[in-house]
Amino acid sequence: MSKLIETRPPSGFRDYEPEKMIPKERMLQTAREVCRSYGFTPIDTPAVESLEVLLGKGGEESDKLVYRVRGAKSEVEEAGLRFDLTVPFARFAARYVPGAGTPFKRYATGPVWRGERPGQGRFREFWQFDFDTIGTTANASDIEIVLLIDDLFTRLELLRVEVRVNNRMVLNGLLESLALSDKSVPLLRSLDKLPKIGRDKVIEEMVREAGVTTEQAARVLVLAETTGTNTEVLDRVEREFGSNERTAEGVRRLRELVAVCAAVGVPDGRVKIDLSIARGLDYYTGTIYETFLTDMPGIGSVCSGGRYDNLASLYTKQVLPGVGASVGVDRLLAAMEELKHPWMSGGATPAQVLVLQFDAARLGDYQRVARELRAAGIATEVYPDASKKLKAQFEYADKRGFRLALIAGPDEYEKGVWKVKDLAKREEVAVPTAELTNRIARMLRD
Amino acid sequence: MSKLIETRPPSGFRDYEPEKMIPKERMLQTAREVCRSYGFTPIDTPAVESLEVLLGKGGEESDKLVYRVRGAKSEVEEAGLRFDLTVPFARFAARYVPGAGTPFKRYATGPVWRGERPGQGRFREFWQFDFDTIGTTANASDIEIVLLIDDLFTRLELLRVEVRVNNRMVLNGLLESLALSDKSVPLLRSLDKLPKIGRDKVIEEMVREAGVTTEQAARVLVLAETTGTNTEVLDRVEREFGSNERTAEGVRRLRELVAVCAAVGVPDGRVKIDLSIARGLDYYTGTIYETFLTDMPGIGSVCSGGRYDNLASLYTKQVLPGVGASVGVDRLLAAMEELKHPWMSGGATPAQVLVLQFDAARLGDYQRVARELRAAGIATEVYPDASKKLKAQFEYADKRGFRLALIAGPDEYEKGVWKVKDLAKREEVAVPTAELTNRIARMLRD
Repeated sequence: MSKLIETRPPSGFRDYEPEKMIPKERMLQTAREVCRSYGFTPIDTPAVESLEVLLGKGGEESDKLVYRVRGAKSEVEEAGLRFDLTVPFARFAARYVPGAGTPFKRYATGPVWRGERPGQGRFREFWQFDFDTIGTTANASDIEIVLLIDDLFTRLELLRVEVRVNNRMVLNGLLESLALSDKSVPLLRSLDKLPKIGRDKVIEEMVREAGVTTEQAARVLVLAETTGTNTEVLDRVEREFGSNERTAEGVRRLRELVAVCAAVGVPDGRVKIDLSIARGLDYYTGTIYETFLTDMPGIGSVCSGGRYDNLASLYTKQVLPGVGASVGVDRLLAAMEELKHPWMSGGATPAQVLVLQFDAARLGDYQRVARELRAAGIATEVYPDASKKLKAQFEYADKRGFRLALIAGPDEYEKGVWKVKDLAKREEVAVPTAELTNRIARMLRD
Repeated sequence: MSKLIETRPPSGFRDYEPEKMIPKERMLQTAREVCRSYGFTPIDTPAVESLEVLLGKGGEESDKLVYRVRGAKSEVEEAGLRFDLTVPFARFAARYVPGAGTPFKRYATGPVWRGERPGQGRFREFWQFDFDTIGTTANASDIEIVLLIDDLFTRLELLRVEVRVNNRMVLNGLLESLALSDKSVPLLRSLDKLPKIGRDKVIEEMVREAGVTTEQAARVLVLAETTGTNTEVLDRVEREFGSNERTAEGVRRLRELVAVCAAVGVPDGRVKIDLSIARGLDYYTGTIYETFLTDMPGIGSVCSGGRYDNLASLYTKQVLPGVGASVGVDRLLAAMEELKHPWMSGGATPAQVLVLQFDAARLGDYQRVARELRAAGIATEVYPDASKKLKAQFEYADKRGFRLALIAGPDEYEKGVWKVKDLAKREEVAVPTAELTNRIARMLRD
C-alpha cells in the first residue's frame, strides 16, 4: 500500500469540526436573519475575480496579498481570489444598481483569502459578514447600522458589548480650520495609536510624521480626548470646535444618532460617542463604528465600518455614497470560545434526541416516531446499527452530547410506552406513545 | 478620469442578484434544517487544498479540472481549489473520526470550482450540498438518506418528485454469476445510456466495448429493465436472479427500504425501485439514489448519491464505509426558476413592510415601530431619506416588492393611528398604534 496522504489542511487554512461549525452556522444564520429583518437583501459574488478588479485600487499592498488562480487549460484569464467583500460589492453595485435603483441595501457573507504569513489567530482564509446601504447620504442609514449592530449582538447573546461611534467630519472640520486637511492621513494614523502609546508619544509622532506644530497636535488631541456622557462630549465639542461648519454637521449627525437610539430603546451604555477612534482607512468620510466586547477588549473591534463617499468609482460614473459594517466572523467566534459562551458548549450534534435501535425489525417504528418529533421541531437521530449493544449506543449518545435517548424493546411495545432517558440526569421515565412528542418537548424546555 | 473597469465577473463565474439569492439562501437554509433534524452535523473545510489531496486519486481527469492557487510570496505550497466536497470530506474524516468515533453524520455546503469550458448552464464555480453517514454498513443509514430526501423536497415545496433507487449488489451479483465481474465498469457505462440510445444499441455497445456475448448483454438488460410496482420488481428479480447471494442481499436491502418508507408515511410513488440506474461512478458499491423532478425530467437528477465501501483509504487505514447524497444547488435553483416555483417570485427584498419616511424628525418613532414589528418576526425596512417625496418612496416600495407600506404624518400623529397601505390591492386602512403589530401580522397572513 502506498504512503498515506497528510490530513492537515494547507498551512494557514483550517477545518471546522462540528463543535465549532454548529455555533458558526448559528452565528451566520442569526446575522442573516437580523439583516433581513431590516430589509437588507442577500447577494453573492464569486470567489474568483479578475486581477484588474482585485488590484484596481490597492497597488502594491493588495498585489502581495492576492492569491492568483490559474486553470490547467491556458485560456483562463488573469484572476485571483477576493481578499475582502467590499471590492466585489463595488463591482456588483456598478452592474446592478443602475437598473435596481437606490437606496440599495445588501448583506453578503463568505470566505476571503489573503496570502499572509500564517500565525497565532491569523489565517489565509477567513469569513466576513458585511452589510451596507448605498445610494443615499441620509443619516437615517448611518443610525440604522448602529440599531442593527445592537440587535445583532443581542440576538447573539453577547450583551456586554459597546458600539463606539465617531464621525470623521468632526475631526476633518478641525483640520480644515487649522489648515491641515492635506495631513489628515498621517494624523489619523498617529491618532489610532493613542490607546497604545499615549498622548505624549502621539504628539511627538504627529510633529515628526505629519510636520505639524506641537500646538496643532495638542489641539487635535483635545478634540479626540473629550470625555463624558454622550451628550456632554457632543456639547463640549460643539462649544469648543463648533464654529467650523463641517465639525458642527458631524456633531449634529452624532446627536441625532444618540437621540434615535434612545427613542428606539437601545440600552444605556451600549452606544458610546468616542472621538478618538479613527480607523486608519482613508476610505471613510463620515460616521465610523467599532464594536468591543466588554469582557475582551484586547481582541479589538469585532464589527467595524463607516460611511464612504463613493463606493464604485472604478466601475461607474454613478456616484454611490454608502454606509456599512463588517463582522469579523472567525475572530468573534474565537472570542465566544474564549468567553465560554453558551453556544460553544453544545457538543457535536445538532440533534437533542437519539432513538436507540433495539430491534432491527422495528426500524419503521423508530423512524416514524423520529419523523413525528422532527415535525414538532425536535431534531431526532435514529442510531443506525442494531448490531451494536445498547451500551455502545448510550456511549455514542453521551460522547456526541445528546440530551435524551428513546428506547423501545419488546417490554415497551407490549405496554404501549417508550422509555425516555435523560442522559445528564441519568433518569428514566416510561411515556405512553400518544404523549411522547409533548412530553419530550417539555423535557427539552425544562 | 481613467477607463472604467469591466463589471462582469470572469467568464464562467456569476453574481447572485437579490432576486436569485433570496431563494438560494432559503433553499440552503431549508437543507441545513432538514439535515440537522436528522442529526447530521455541519462541518466546513477550506476552499484551498494541497494538490496532493486534490489529485490523490483522480489522475489526468482531475488534473485538468483543478484550478491552481499560488500566493504572490513564494513560500506557499502547491495548492488548488476543491472540485467537489467529497475529497475534502475524506481528508477531514481521516483526521476527525478516529477521535470522534462512528457513526459520523455530516453535511457540508459551499462552492466548488472546475476549470471547464463555460457554456449553457455550465459554470466554473457552483454550489453543492452534501450529506453522508460514515462508519457503518447498516441499511438503516441507506434508508435514512431516502427519508431525508423526501423531507427535503417536501420542505422545498417540490412535491412532484421521484427518488429512484437501485442497489449495485443486484447487478453485481448477476455479473458474478455470469463471471463478468471484471467487466462491470464498461457494462455500467453502457447501461447508463439506456434511456438515450435504447436497448439494441446498448447491447451492441456492450458486446463491442466490454467483449461480452449478446446473450450475456441481454441477460443484463432483462435485469435492468424489470418493471412493475416496487414489490413486483423485487419479487421478479428475486425469482429470476435471486440464486446469487449478492443479488439476494441487494434485493433484501431494497425491500427493507421500501417497507420502512411505507411505515414512515412517505407518499406512494415518491420512491421508485429502478434497476436501470447505474451512476457511471465506479465508486459506489451498494444503494444508489437519483432524484427527478416530474415536471422537468430532462435536466437530470437534482440529488444523487449512494453507498461506498471505503471513503478515506488514501488518508487512513481505518476503513470508513458510508452512504450519502449531494444536491446540485444551482441546477435545482435553475429548475425552480424554470418551473416558476413560488419562492422565485418574491421580489428583491426579504422584508415585507416598508415604513415611509414622512418627517425626518420622527425617525425615532419610525425605527421604534419597525423594531416592534421585527420583534414580532415581521421584517421591516425604514426608508432612509426624508428628502425624497412620498411618490418616490412608494415607487421604491413597488419596485422592490414590499407588500405593505406604513405612513405616519401630522394627521396620523394627531389621531394616534398609522396608515397601512396594501401595495398590491392599493387599499389603505388607518390602524390605531396599539393594534398595529397584530393587524399587520394578520394582513400578511391573509
